[in-house]
Amino acid sequence: MSSFPASLENLIDQFASLPGIGRKSAQRLAFHVLSLPDEQAFAFADAVRTAKKQVKRCKICRNYSEQDICPICSSDRRDRGIICVVSDPKDVVSMERAREYNGLYHVLHGVISPMNHIGPDDIGVRELLERAASEDIREVIMATNPDTEGEATALYISRLLKPFEIRVTRLAYGIPVGSNLEFADDATLSRALEGRTEL
Amino acid sequence: MSSFPASLENLIDQFASLPGIGRKSAQRLAFHVLSLPDEQAFAFADAVRTAKKQVKRCKICRNYSEQDICPICSSDRRDRGIICVVSDPKDVVSMERAREYNGLYHVLHGVISPMNHIGPDDIGVRELLERAASEDIREVIMATNPDTEGEATALYISRLLKPFEIRVTRLAYGIPVGSNLEFADDATLSRALEGRTEL
Repeated sequence: MSSFPASLENLIDQFASLPGIGRKSAQRLAFHVLSLPDEQAFAFADAVRTAKKQVKRCKICRNYSEQDICPICSSDRRDRGIICVVSDPKDVVSMERAREYNGLYHVLHGVISPMNHIGPDDIGVRELLERAASEDIREVIMATNPDTEGEATALYISRLLKPFEIRVTRLAYGIPVGSNLEFADDATLSRALEGRTEL
Repeated sequence: MSSFPASLENLIDQFASLPGIGRKSAQRLAFHVLSLPDEQAFAFADAVRTAKKQVKRCKICRNYSEQDICPICSSDRRDRGIICVVSDPKDVVSMERAREYNGLYHVLHGVISPMNHIGPDDIGVRELLERAASEDIREVIMATNPDTEGEATALYISRLLKPFEIRVTRLAYGIPVGSNLEFADDATLSRALEGRTEL
């Protein structure tokens, strides 16, 4: 008697189960959905359903795609000799935005993280090795995040790639463009010094 | 080429259209939905659809309900002589949680707010007057929020209720239970002083 109708409670529960959404936010979102016109609320429900149904992983690079083979892997204007390994589909979008890279990708969907019981078999490592064996790859660029787990994953994969005699590289560390030396942390500064280049 | 598949972009847009959810959060939520097992993602979509379809407003008090008449209005254990006027269905839940009130409710679904072009006709004022005229009401408790708009709305409604010779009351202002005088603001303190009671 003292709570919301069952279907509203259920909707609040569903919102609250999303990451980063607490009980109060979930309530606010559920109330917002109820306040929408029917067609808008149903469009939201359909968007969830449709995305879940249509978006799959590219059979080659494991990036999200609506086709079996994603537009990047099926493009004939990309350099098929380079693979950039990222941990997340978001990172592909970031890389593409930089307009500097013209090779292929490999999306791990995670990083090795013993604390969270995520091992090499849970992310796309085996698939990467298969690509290294079957495709004509010159270079693999490790572009996992520059944190402990991203580092460890990059190192682990680079060792597995040794036997294939492929050049394995890592994105450069250093001070971000447009930032301020004053605010750069010690680790970044010392890496920037290590990686200094000839002018 | 450099963005997400269309259905994923659409899902991100839908999440981003929710209040308080920015582009980055929307992306995170959409990715989370894609990472869910099919049945969980579809359950989420269904929850939106079902809640939107089944939850309507109680024909008497306008609170959210799956029935035409909500459980509170149809209960024979509530005091039908008192109406507590709140601006939001959430407030009914809060009042019920206090386990102190045993009357009926009237949910305005908003407050009068000229800045946002919300007038008395946009919230349930007319319906409240109809109830005052047709039901046997002794008292109306104004429980809108203690902010400018809530105050103005309470005052406005109390004037409209004058001709019905119903007792119109307002929730007491004062220092919150368990709080600290040190942190009470001036307005609250002066209201607490005004409303002081005999010990």
